[in-house]
This record gives sequence, C-alpha cells and structure tokens, in this order.
Amino acid sequence: KTTTISDGSRVVCELSRNRKVAVKKFKGKVFVDVREFWSKDGEDLPSKKGISLPLEQWEMLREHIEDVREVIASFT
Amino acid sequence: KTTTISDGSRVVCELSRNRKVAVKKFKGKVFVDVREFWSKDGEDLPSKKGISLPLEQWEMLREHIEDVREVIASFT
Repeated sequence: KTTTISDGSRVVCELSRNRKVAVKKFKGKVFVDVREFWSKDGEDLPSKKGISLPLEQWEMLREHIEDVREVIASFT
Repeated sequence: KTTTISDGSRVVCELSRNRKVAVKKFKGKVFVDVREFWSKDGEDLPSKKGISLPLEQWEMLREHIEDVREVIASFT
C-alpha cells in the first residue's frame, strides 16, 4: 500500500508536493523522517531539509500533541 | 509555563538535549518547528537541521499518526 523510495524509506503521507513523512530503517534502527525530497530522473531523493526522529523521539513528539495544541491556541 | 527562546519560538518539549518541538509565529502564520538548536552565550539559536511545519501540515501529520504506527510495525 505504501510507496518505497530510493533511500529505502516508506512514505506514510505527503505533507506537500515535495514534503513527506516517511519511515526508514538505518543501521538496524527505525526512524520517522519528516523531510523534503527532490525528484531526479523520476526518483525521489532526500534533501537536507528535514529531520529524522529515532523512535523514542517520535514517541515523545506523539505524547506532546496535546501540549502543541495548547501552545498553538495561545498564539491564535 | 513554556519557555520562549530567542527566535520567538515557544518550546513545547525537548526531544533530546538540543532537539526541540517549538511553536512560532512568522509573518502572521503559526508553525510547528521540529529542530535542533545550539547554545550561544546562554541563548538557544535555531540550527538548519529541522523542519518548520505550517499548521495545515502539522494537522496532516497528526492525522497520520496511526499510519506511521502501522509502517513502524511492519519494519520491526
């Protein structure tokens, strides 16, 4: 169901035309990558713009979703 | 309750010693920033390593949390 791209990432969703949430395994560890990719010869290649979160950091982000919502609300 | 840093971001949580989830307003729009910061003279400054998500991209990421979980599970 999910697409796999050239660096072995599996794309979970596209946040914009070239920005994706992807999951990859690197040196035996799983990372959640929120990153911009660029297209070369029909292949998606990772750009430097983005961040790779090791699983524990992804979990921590998940646990703070509600806090993010509160801070957003305080800004708007 | 939250800390505000030099670029006006409000820190929601620290994913690691220098990696933070922060919310900022820029040109009237709110962004969720997942980024590494570096410390200079006691101040936290944003590095290039990271990504700023406009609200609609943050919401999209939130909506795909369960899909991320499934892809992670397929890797482990």
